[in-house]
Amino acid sequence: MKAAVITGVGSVEVTTVDDPACGPREVIVDVAACGLCGTDLHILQGEFAPTLPVVPGHEFAGTVVEIGSQVNEVRVGDRVAVDPSLYCHECRMCRSGKSNLCERWAAIGVTTSGGAAEFAVAPVANCVKLPDHVRTEDAALIEPLSCAVRGYDVLRTQMASRVLIYGSGTMGLMMLQLGKLTGASSIEVVDLNAERLETAVKLGVSAVAGSADELDRPEGWDVVIDATGNEKAIQDGLGRVAKGGTFLQFGVSDYSARVTIEPYRIYNQEITITGSMAVLHSFERAADLFATGVLDPEIFISDRVPLTDYAGALDQFKAGKGRKIQVLP
Amino acid sequence: MKAAVITGVGSVEVTTVDDPACGPREVIVDVAACGLCGTDLHILQGEFAPTLPVVPGHEFAGTVVEIGSQVNEVRVGDRVAVDPSLYCHECRMCRSGKSNLCERWAAIGVTTSGGAAEFAVAPVANCVKLPDHVRTEDAALIEPLSCAVRGYDVLRTQMASRVLIYGSGTMGLMMLQLGKLTGASSIEVVDLNAERLETAVKLGVSAVAGSADELDRPEGWDVVIDATGNEKAIQDGLGRVAKGGTFLQFGVSDYSARVTIEPYRIYNQEITITGSMAVLHSFERAADLFATGVLDPEIFISDRVPLTDYAGALDQFKAGKGRKIQVLP
Amino acid sequence: MKAAVITGVGSVEVTTVDDPACGPREVIVDVAACGLCGTDLHILQGEFAPTLPVVPGHEFAGTVVEIGSQVNEVRVGDRVAVDPSLYCHECRMCRSGKSNLCERWAAIGVTTSGGAAEFAVAPVANCVKLPDHVRTEDAALIEPLSCAVRGYDVLRTQMASRVLIYGSGTMGLMMLQLGKLTGASSIEVVDLNAERLETAVKLGVSAVAGSADELDRPEGWDVVIDATGNEKAIQDGLGRVAKGGTFLQFGVSDYSARVTIEPYRIYNQEITITGSMAVLHSFERAADLFATGVLDPEIFISDRVPLTDYAGALDQFKAGKGRKIQVLP
Amino acid sequence: MKAAVITGVGSVEVTTVDDPACGPREVIVDVAACGLCGTDLHILQGEFAPTLPVVPGHEFAGTVVEIGSQVNEVRVGDRVAVDPSLYCHECRMCRSGKSNLCERWAAIGVTTSGGAAEFAVAPVANCVKLPDHVRTEDAALIEPLSCAVRGYDVLRTQMASRVLIYGSGTMGLMMLQLGKLTGASSIEVVDLNAERLETAVKLGVSAVAGSADELDRPEGWDVVIDATGNEKAIQDGLGRVAKGGTFLQFGVSDYSARVTIEPYRIYNQEITITGSMAVLHSFERAADLFATGVLDPEIFISDRVPLTDYAGALDQFKAGKGRKIQVLP
Ligand SMILES: NC(=O)c1ccc[n+]([C@@H]2O[C@H](COP(=O)([O-])OP(=O)(O)OC[C@H]3O[C@@H](n4cnc5c(N)ncnc54)[C@H](OP(=O)(O)O)[C@@H]3O)[C@@H](O)[C@H]2O)c1
Ligand SMILES: NC(=O)c1ccc[n+]([C@@H]2O[C@H](COP(=O)([O-])OP(=O)(O)OC[C@H]3O[C@@H](n4cnc5c(N)ncnc54)[C@H](OP(=O)(O)O)[C@@H]3O)[C@@H](O)[C@H]2O)c1
Ligand SMILES: NC(=O)c1ccc[n+]([C@@H]2O[C@H](COP(=O)([O-])OP(=O)(O)OC[C@H]3O[C@@H](n4cnc5c(N)ncnc54)[C@H](OP(=O)(O)O)[C@@H]3O)[C@@H](O)[C@H]2O)c1
Ligand SMILES: NC(=O)c1ccc[n+]([C@@H]2O[C@H](COP(=O)([O-])OP(=O)(O)OC[C@H]3O[C@@H](n4cnc5c(N)ncnc54)[C@H](OP(=O)(O)O)[C@@H]3O)[C@@H](O)[C@H]2O)c1
Ligand SMILES: [Zn+2]
Ligand SMILES: [Zn+2]
Ligand SMILES: [Zn+2]
Ligand SMILES: [Zn+2]
Repeated sequence: MKAAVITGVGSVEVTTVDDPACGPREVIVDVAACGLCGTDLHILQGEFAPTLPVVPGHEFAGTVVEIGSQVNEVRVGDRVAVDPSLYCHECRMCRSGKSNLCERWAAIGVTTSGGAAEFAVAPVANCVKLPDHVRTEDAALIEPLSCAVRGYDVLRTQMASRVLIYGSGTMGLMMLQLGKLTGASSIEVVDLNAERLETAVKLGVSAVAGSADELDRPEGWDVVIDATGNEKAIQDGLGRVAKGGTFLQFGVSDYSARVTIEPYRIYNQEITITGSMAVLHSFERAADLFATGVLDPEIFISDRVPLTDYAGALDQFKAGKGRKIQVLP
Repeated sequence: MKAAVITGVGSVEVTTVDDPACGPREVIVDVAACGLCGTDLHILQGEFAPTLPVVPGHEFAGTVVEIGSQVNEVRVGDRVAVDPSLYCHECRMCRSGKSNLCERWAAIGVTTSGGAAEFAVAPVANCVKLPDHVRTEDAALIEPLSCAVRGYDVLRTQMASRVLIYGSGTMGLMMLQLGKLTGASSIEVVDLNAERLETAVKLGVSAVAGSADELDRPEGWDVVIDATGNEKAIQDGLGRVAKGGTFLQFGVSDYSARVTIEPYRIYNQEITITGSMAVLHSFERAADLFATGVLDPEIFISDRVPLTDYAGALDQFKAGKGRKIQVLP
Repeated sequence: MKAAVITGVGSVEVTTVDDPACGPREVIVDVAACGLCGTDLHILQGEFAPTLPVVPGHEFAGTVVEIGSQVNEVRVGDRVAVDPSLYCHECRMCRSGKSNLCERWAAIGVTTSGGAAEFAVAPVANCVKLPDHVRTEDAALIEPLSCAVRGYDVLRTQMASRVLIYGSGTMGLMMLQLGKLTGASSIEVVDLNAERLETAVKLGVSAVAGSADELDRPEGWDVVIDATGNEKAIQDGLGRVAKGGTFLQFGVSDYSARVTIEPYRIYNQEITITGSMAVLHSFERAADLFATGVLDPEIFISDRVPLTDYAGALDQFKAGKGRKIQVLP
Repeated sequence: MKAAVITGVGSVEVTTVDDPACGPREVIVDVAACGLCGTDLHILQGEFAPTLPVVPGHEFAGTVVEIGSQVNEVRVGDRVAVDPSLYCHECRMCRSGKSNLCERWAAIGVTTSGGAAEFAVAPVANCVKLPDHVRTEDAALIEPLSCAVRGYDVLRTQMASRVLIYGSGTMGLMMLQLGKLTGASSIEVVDLNAERLETAVKLGVSAVAGSADELDRPEGWDVVIDATGNEKAIQDGLGRVAKGGTFLQFGVSDYSARVTIEPYRIYNQEITITGSMAVLHSFERAADLFATGVLDPEIFISDRVPLTDYAGALDQFKAGKGRKIQVLP
């Protein structure tokens, strides 16, 4: 089959590889669409994936074309979204219910062949069937949405929170949509890129700004979310948390990023700083929410390109142009 | 001034009473509208209010016409919604943060003169200023909304919950709106009164039914809310909770109501049954949500009648006709 | 090997069965001791276990005598306690983090051969190594303790709670010990069996009684725990919960048990009723606590009998004599 | 009466001041003992107290010698511990249930005359009666204990947590005692001051060290608590939090203290950093726990000096000698 392959640090090509084989509790998915995200760039830089070459792609959906000998939950022809998480179920973290922090962390498209290919293999338990009204290729948005759901699970915001989000990329916009869905009384979005803020406006944000200084909230925000991974944004955001409020580190920073906090303020204002990592008990729920229309695919997916353009798509993503970019095998 | 007065068990009249006097940290509100609710009926039946006569009305909003000598938070002319809760701040429950369970429970319109009158007095701390775009009389909906917010605070639902609500009266419909606002993936409403279900449909419910048997959810619902107070509804609802799910007793039953539960199921399926009582840390938040348009007053307020019709309004409410009925002094 | 076998409804014998075989990620444990509990009685009555015959015993510890081809976490000679839970990791409940409510619920000693035998097989991930100072046979107490830990995880009590426990059997006494360990300011225990209350006294209970009426707590208790499964105890306990308090259904009632609740009180006093089922993310933690000495085995284990007396041990347990009864193969 | 007075920045004296007057809902307490803490030093440095002179002392207990005209909860002769918190009950934070973050923050001994005097006045709601077996002067420990309880309320630790505490002063030792009381499976304490660690050892700590490097916990600690306020300790502690773990900022740092965090780690390991400030719904509970003997006054109180030595006592505290130092009027 045809697949994108990250062959070594910095090199990616679309080539022919062996078709995947189907284990007894696995299925083969004919990929309809596969989204790109920061993780793919990290793999290209030689991070995250334990070995190269690897077929990337952990955000995908498609049609089941083959089922393993012990599969009866889905049938050939079913359309599914795939949770890429491969938990060991055995380590200390898995056994304590925090499988997203699994000590043998693994994921389709990172440690095993992923969805940037004509076909991908997945455990049947990772497949969520799509209702009729959801288009298969759109359902590749469920995986990033399930990360955003995890973010709000960590936050457990009360209704009527005042929310500030840094970053108006795909993830910042998803955080915006989920902010509305968890009853925020206001959501403001900060991004350096004025063009990107336009989408936030289209989605009904309370206000947008190039800097939080432009926003009139002297008491700060109950919830501040970083969806940039950028050191400056994080540093700025930490200072914007209201008394008793919470900062969520959702963006993935460089390992070397460092920010400064004030212990006196953490204590005196009971500020909480916390983080959210990937998907935990949130994939099926993201699929359910996606089916209710919480994300408009026409807004969230800016580009759908052929799989053969995988390298170009990755370049565009790196350049910060558009929102979610998908490859279609 | 003119006021409705519950003079004794079963008897109510609109008459002239003394104008209220304003304490140093109080304000006098020229009432724009006052909503009726089940509590008013209870008072009429000789319950809840410790002494009669009393001017009822705990759901109201209006314009500040006088401020106490030590008030500087609001000014004459400000339009406000009023939280009727009068906590003692001293009892065991208040000191443990559960002031809605205050051992000296008191409320404007129950233990002191309320809003079914031309003027009402309120502590300034109980007044929340209305933004320009909110009409004063509509803001009388904030109080019941703040009870509904408390209900969801108790529930602390996760996003993508499947919610079933019994009752399509004002409160059931508010629970529906807040279900959407807390990210439910589906919300179904059951009511015996087909006419009332029409409003739920208008508000975008997932499905309505005269009986939960008609709904196709073999696994049950993650969250079941009683907003009827009716023994039969509660009994039925308790059996509909999914594994690991929660039942919220929001409706106010008769003291004598009794329902049956199965200890084996509570244990084996880790079912939770809990309750929500009035307003706790939720009034300002309800006001914020109301300002975002979470409730459409044209849908929620079915009747606006002159204060002089107070007795008739109460009769209509008792008969279960319409939704929120307001008197306008 | 020698094993107790429940061969059919009501019939149990100690006989010779095949030695267990070890899968690649499994180990064979030479059982040091295996505790009896209500579940074993249920199996004998034809409940819980999907098929008979079965070797019972889900509370056991022993020494590893063989390891599977892919095991490197434990070695032959290691002493381990075994978590009997066998989660599918695939069903709706498992994928939502509630594996104790697994839809394909399975457990060593219930759905597969258990510890009432010379040897038992277990997945390596279910084995927790014992520190030197813990005696192997005592460690069979870790499994029931891990259920009790789950109970308190569900409760998430605040420090300084007033706790009332029904039942002074093994589980009630464990709930007592964990009540102290979660900072209860007082713990009272009710049991009909005066002899059993003596052990509670020995463990430092605040007070014991044959009926909660004898205890002077007019405001009720913040936390009431049923550890009897008895309908009368549950009914009585539900009425003892203080405002804002919680009732935990820990005891396993008959399917047919029914109790009555008052919806008005659930609402007006914000009472919570909840349940706790088996082990969830609590086995390793129970092992850690056990190693700190939270349970004195000399008090908790009343009888250690040879495996050959399995039937007699079950009879004694049924008769409610003693506390934890162990068989030693 | 005789009282310690902080007359200006850096100057303190024991002198004669007017006896306190008793409002209708207040009582006059004949102070038995008053503890010193970091807050008193801050006041002396010109911080915290809005105006000087002030009589310091917010940790005290004594005997009621006069009650206000509307007091019926306590009687002359009752022995009480006093919660110094004076909440406004009106501000945004108070109305949202976070009165410890009150925007008009006030406290006996900081904004009004405190307990370093023969007599002190307190609202009756702030007085908690002592049971017979608690000595009045020992009960001055309840206030710091109630801060420590708040700390654990913020943490909401699960049982069997591994806890690391920085600081073996009064507060670190209280955190140690409460760590045991919330079911920690191990508690380790780090302090630079070897002498102070001896008390931790006496209290049954799992291990002590001059540096966390000496402790063998490669996975880190589930809970790390700073009870020093020291920048270096905080920086070190932040790096010791295990995957999914929590850091509590309990120590009060200088305003100017700054520490560095790694956003990648916060995200990838879902680390939480949070803070705890003073007393929230925890005073009565601390009193209840104190009555159970959770703190041994003979260990916790190192010095009891006459009120006339107030200045010397403050110097000794500043020098870090002893543990809790009390003045006895
Ligand atoms: N926690 C998780 O589970 C999870 C899951 C998925 C993704 N993520 C992370 O979430 C982050 C966002 O993902 P994405 O796909 O939305 O990325 P993206 O498309 O790159 O969006 C990030 C946005 O942040 C803006 N930005 C950068 N620095 C900023 C600053 N100092 N102030 C304000 N805005 C700033 C960027 O503007 P420019 O275009 O001008 O640079 C860009 O518009 C990434 O770090 C990603 O790795 C986390
Ligand atoms: N917890 C709180 O803080 C709080 C605050 C406010 C109100 N409440 C309570 O919330 C409840 C609802 O208030 P509301 O103003 O919405 O009352 P409502 O207008 O009387 O609405 C209740 C609805 O429930 C329906 N109903 C009655 N029995 C039913 C059954 N067995 N099955 C299905 N539906 C049934 C009624 O139908 P019919 O018209 O045919 O009878 C009615 O449409 C009341 O009990 C009220 O006291 C609680
Ligand atoms: N939730 C879970 O995960 C879990 C785990 C393990 C066990 N359990 C359950 O926990 C319960 C307790 O287990 P156990 O091993 O401790 O059982 P046990 O030894 O039978 O102890 C139960 C005690 O309750 C007493 N009792 C019975 N009816 C009572 C009443 N009306 N009032 C007061 N006391 C009463 C019994 O007294 P008599 O001796 O006079 O009858 C007995 O002393 C059982 O139902 C068991 O199945 C639950
Ligand atoms: N959050 C709240 O509500 C609350 C309430 C009360 C108190 N507090 C705060 O809690 C903190 C502790 O109070 P305390 O009365 O116990 O103070 P303390 O008696 O001064 O104890 C602090 C201890 O920390 C040690 N220490 C200092 N730097 C250290 C480092 N780098 N590594 C390890 N240990 C170090 C000190 O050692 P040396 O003696 O050698 O300096 C001292 O033994 C203070 O900051 C206090 O203001 C907070
Ligand atoms: Zn794992
Ligand atoms: Zn009160
Ligand atoms: Zn399962
Ligand atoms: Zn305040």
